Amino acid sequence: MFSMSEKIAGIDIGGTKINFACVEGEEPGCDVISLKTPGTSRGILDAFYDGVGQLIAKHGIKAIGIATAGTVDLENSRVTGSTGNLPAGYSGLELKKTLEEKFNIPVLVENDANAAAYAEFKAGSAKGHLNTITITLGTGIGGGIIANGKLIRGRSGAGAEIGHIPMTPEKKRKCTCGAWDCWEAYASGTGYALNARELARKIPVNNRKGVLKDKNIDELTTYDVISGLNNNDKFAVEVHNLWEEYLSMGIASLMNVFEPDSVVLSGGMAKFINYDALNAKIRERVVIADTQLVPAKFENFAGLLGAVYLASEKFFR
Amino acid sequence: MFSMSEKIAGIDIGGTKINFACVEGEEPGCDVISLKTPGTSRGILDAFYDGVGQLIAKHGIKAIGIATAGTVDLENSRVTGSTGNLPAGYSGLELKKTLEEKFNIPVLVENDANAAAYAEFKAGSAKGHLNTITITLGTGIGGGIIANGKLIRGRSGAGAEIGHIPMTPEKKRKCTCGAWDCWEAYASGTGYALNARELARKIPVNNRKGVLKDKNIDELTTYDVISGLNNNDKFAVEVHNLWEEYLSMGIASLMNVFEPDSVVLSGGMAKFINYDALNAKIRERVVIADTQLVPAKFENFAGLLGAVYLASEKFFR
Repeated sequence: MFSMSEKIAGIDIGGTKINFACVEGEEPGCDVISLKTPGTSRGILDAFYDGVGQLIAKHGIKAIGIATAGTVDLENSRVTGSTGNLPAGYSGLELKKTLEEKFNIPVLVENDANAAAYAEFKAGSAKGHLNTITITLGTGIGGGIIANGKLIRGRSGAGAEIGHIPMTPEKKRKCTCGAWDCWEAYASGTGYALNARELARKIPVNNRKGVLKDKNIDELTTYDVISGLNNNDKFAVEVHNLWEEYLSMGIASLMNVFEPDSVVLSGGMAKFINYDALNAKIRERVVIADTQLVPAKFENFAGLLGAVYLASEKFFR
Repeated sequence: MFSMSEKIAGIDIGGTKINFACVEGEEPGCDVISLKTPGTSRGILDAFYDGVGQLIAKHGIKAIGIATAGTVDLENSRVTGSTGNLPAGYSGLELKKTLEEKFNIPVLVENDANAAAYAEFKAGSAKGHLNTITITLGTGIGGGIIANGKLIRGRSGAGAEIGHIPMTPEKKRKCTCGAWDCWEAYASGTGYALNARELARKIPVNNRKGVLKDKNIDELTTYDVISGLNNNDKFAVEVHNLWEEYLSMGIASLMNVFEPDSVVLSGGMAKFINYDALNAKIRERVVIADTQLVPAKFENFAGLLGAVYLASEKFFR
C-alpha cells in the first residue's frame, strides 16, 4: 500500500478557487482551506504564502505539492503557459523558487490533470496499474497519462493534451483552442450541448417534442437533454448516444496507443456515462483487449493529492 | 554519438522475408543475408539457426537482436500474437530461450515498428529526440513511440497500435482488424485506394476524365492516382489532399498526446507526401508547437538496427 512518511501541504489552484490541505497517509489529514482565486498574480502568491503559512504553523509540513491549471515545465518548478482563466502574470511566476525561499521546504509543481491521474494511479481507481489514463470530462476535456509508472509530459511539459484528438476530417467545428474538430469540441459538456443544438436544428419546428418543445434551440443546454433521459425522451437518447460515440472514439484512440490497464473517468460529465453502453461502443473501435473503464475515486481532491504524492516520491524516497 | 562496443547480429523477420546482418557501430557491418520467410514455424527457427550460425562463425557475434512482426512480450523474449501473415505456430515460439540455449549469447526480441522507431531515435532522423514517433505508412500503418527516451509498450507489449486511431464517428469503413474507421483504413496505401474509389463513384461515368477515363473504378489503384499527380489531374489532387487530411488527423492526435520533438515518416507511402501541405494541415489540428516532421533515415534496415541497438543497451551497458 502506498503511504507517505512525511506530512505534505497540497495546493490545488484553478480559475475559480484555491484549495489547501495537509496530507498524511493517502488522504487529506486536516481541514481543507478553500478560497476564491485572487484576480492578480501577486494576490495568488500572497494567498499561497498565507495558506501554506497556516498549514506549516499548525501541522509541521515538510514539503509542498502544487497542482495547477496550465502547462508546467519539465523541472516541475513553474507554470509556462495555457493558464486559461487565471490572471495574466501567473504564468511565469517562479513558484518553486519563491516558495522554497520563503518556507525553506521543497516544492513541486505539476499540471492538475497530470496530478489527478497520478493520484488515481497511486491510491485511487487505478491503484497498481502501471499503465493508466485519467480523463476529466467537464466544460473541456483534460487528461493525465501514466505509461510504465511514469507521467507522459512531452518535450516541454505540454504533453497529454488528449482533449484535442481530432474527430472528423470534415472541419465541422472549431475548438476553443483554434484547431478543428477536437475531441473536447464534441465530447465535453460544452460539446454535448453543441451536438444537441446541431441535431435539434435538423428537426422541423412542428416536430419538436419532449425536451425540445417550445425551446429556443440556441439556448438548449446539456442539462435540458440529460433531464430528458429519465423520461426516455427520443431526442435526448439520440444526443446521449452520439456523445458516447464521440467519447468512445477518443478513449479508443488512447487505448490503442497505450494499451493501458485502465481508463479512469472523472469530472462533472462522467456521472452521466452509461458504462455498459460506452464499453460496447469502445469495443467496436479497439484492437486492445481488457482495459478496464472505471469511475474516478478522487474527484475534487485528485489534483491536490496527486501533487502531494509526487512531492513525497521526489523528496522523501 | 551513439556507438556500440560489441558486434551484434540483427534479424528482421516479416511475412515475405528474413534479413540477417551483423552490426558494428551504427550500420550493418557485413553482407546482409536475405531469404524468403519459410512457411512453417519450424522452418523459421531453422533459418534463424542457420543465419545466426553463419554470422557467429564469420564475425564473432556477441548478442542477437530480433525485430519481428507481431506483438512481443514485455520481457522481449517471444512473440505473443498479431503476427498477420507469418505461419501458425510462430507466435508462441520461445525465441529468446531457444536461441540463447543454442548459441550461448543473449537475445532480445522486439516488435519491428518499435525497433524501427528506436533506430531513428538512436542514430536516425530523430537522433537526440527524447520524445519521437516513427510512423510507417505501407499497406497498413504501424508505429513506434519513444516517450522520455523509452519505448511505449503498454501493459503487455501490444501498445503503440497507432494505425487504429478512429477517424470519424460515422462507422463508414471497417478496418482489417475488425474495428470501425481506423486510421489505416483511410491513410495507408490500402486506404488511399479505397478513398479514391469512394470519390470516383460519386463522379458520373460521363464526367470521368484523366486518371478515371475508361477505368473500372473497382480496380483503381493508389499507383493510378499517384501517377496522375504529375499531370495535376484534378481527381488525383483531390484524392491526395484527402489522404493528407487523414494523415494530419492521426499525426495531430499523436502530437497532442506526446508533444514530441519529431514525427518520423517511413514506409512506401511516405515518399508521396508533400511535407509543406501536410505540415499546414497538421497546424490546423494541433495545440502543440514546433514538432518536426521528417522523413526516416533508415528504411528497410530500421527494424534490424533498432533491435540491435536495444540489445546493445540491454546487454552491454
